[in-house]
Amino acid sequence: MSQKTMTKEEYLNKVKEIDTTSEAPKQLEDTDFLTVAKERRSVRQYDPDFKIDKREIRELLETAALAPSSSNLQSWRFLVIEDQAEKERLLPIANNQQQIVDASVVIAVLGDREAYKNADRIYSQIAEKGNMPEDIKDMYVNSIFDNYGSFPKERLAKIAHIDGGIAAMQLMLAAKAKGYDTVPMGGYDEAQFIEAFNVPENYETVMLLSLGKGTKAGFQKTRLPIDDILQWNRFE
Amino acid sequence: MSQKTMTKEEYLNKVKEIDTTSEAPKQLEDTDFLTVAKERRSVRQYDPDFKIDKREIRELLETAALAPSSSNLQSWRFLVIEDQAEKERLLPIANNQQQIVDASVVIAVLGDREAYKNADRIYSQIAEKGNMPEDIKDMYVNSIFDNYGSFPKERLAKIAHIDGGIAAMQLMLAAKAKGYDTVPMGGYDEAQFIEAFNVPENYETVMLLSLGKGTKAGFQKTRLPIDDILQWNRFE
Repeated sequence: MSQKTMTKEEYLNKVKEIDTTSEAPKQLEDTDFLTVAKERRSVRQYDPDFKIDKREIRELLETAALAPSSSNLQSWRFLVIEDQAEKERLLPIANNQQQIVDASVVIAVLGDREAYKNADRIYSQIAEKGNMPEDIKDMYVNSIFDNYGSFPKERLAKIAHIDGGIAAMQLMLAAKAKGYDTVPMGGYDEAQFIEAFNVPENYETVMLLSLGKGTKAGFQKTRLPIDDILQWNRFE
Repeated sequence: MSQKTMTKEEYLNKVKEIDTTSEAPKQLEDTDFLTVAKERRSVRQYDPDFKIDKREIRELLETAALAPSSSNLQSWRFLVIEDQAEKERLLPIANNQQQIVDASVVIAVLGDREAYKNADRIYSQIAEKGNMPEDIKDMYVNSIFDNYGSFPKERLAKIAHIDGGIAAMQLMLAAKAKGYDTVPMGGYDEAQFIEAFNVPENYETVMLLSLGKGTKAGFQKTRLPIDDILQWNRFE
């Protein structure tokens, strides 16, 4: 095997050229869960003239936020970058990946390490629905403060990364079911992004996600055989 | 508000008693994506006599593994605990949450920090499908080794947590679409779990997930208003 390598920027952008897929993303008539899961692909080429309205973006995020989270604390936070000038500002921070400026919006999935501070609000909603007695709700909220409040920063960050991944998956599926395409991106400079977009100090970055109308389907799915990533009962 | 609190074990188990939901989990006739996303709930009470066969569990994990991942390296790994004796062994490590032993299986979602070492295998599959020229594939694989091989452990762990969250969401939806229920759990002793189940040193723990036939639906969804977790363009 040749020892030639590419820079990170080349490597992140090359993927678009080398993917020899030629068809456009499939528009689903059937939005059965399994069809959506099978047909969703990571799309890197978008119609730059296609805009999604804010109401629809909010609906997609509401669907994403129906996902489960650690103690239902919903640590996910979303920064939706729709202004073209802001997308242009993000472009070099994200290794000049063209989908940053071509897709309708970039959604930064973030996670709040201090999400537990909303515990009273969240559990009061449950109590008000009649699904939890008030006195138990108070004990529960106190326990969440005790527990999460004593977690080291690394553990709160881990929870934010997992919750953020969970919400991102539901968001990508929701987008596909509505006829849109997405690609999750980890290839950006996190420190520069945090500074450039004033991301609050207590937030974790999880991923960037382009959302729009794709023009090229992206790679067919290839996956490792399931038995290579699956173990029964315990490791030897 | 009272200052009474609960121990972690009480707090994790109390949730079952205090949830005043009385109906059984909804069996979906319509498995449209949006219906599945809305109707999936975290279920903590299971029929202990109900078993799911291995073939079906493998299919659910195959669907989960269709999710996207960092550079398609599929860092997720699954340990499926189905033996009753192994579930009993896990019970005290997971704060005696009854769903550990009552649900058909517990799936430990894990993540391999060394998943990038499979890059040649994964990208060779893509090249063999004719979707990437061989010489480019080599350069691509070399670049992945350079990049991921130079990441500090914390960054590889973060990727494993996010990829694991992504796969877990798709798994939970796939289960619901097939008529099963799940609950993701972070309330377990990670160090004890790793030791008791011989989890490889290069694996991250992401979550435990009970999978089975639920007998009680679990909490109705309550969520923060979307505009409280959503920001447009940049933070002030």
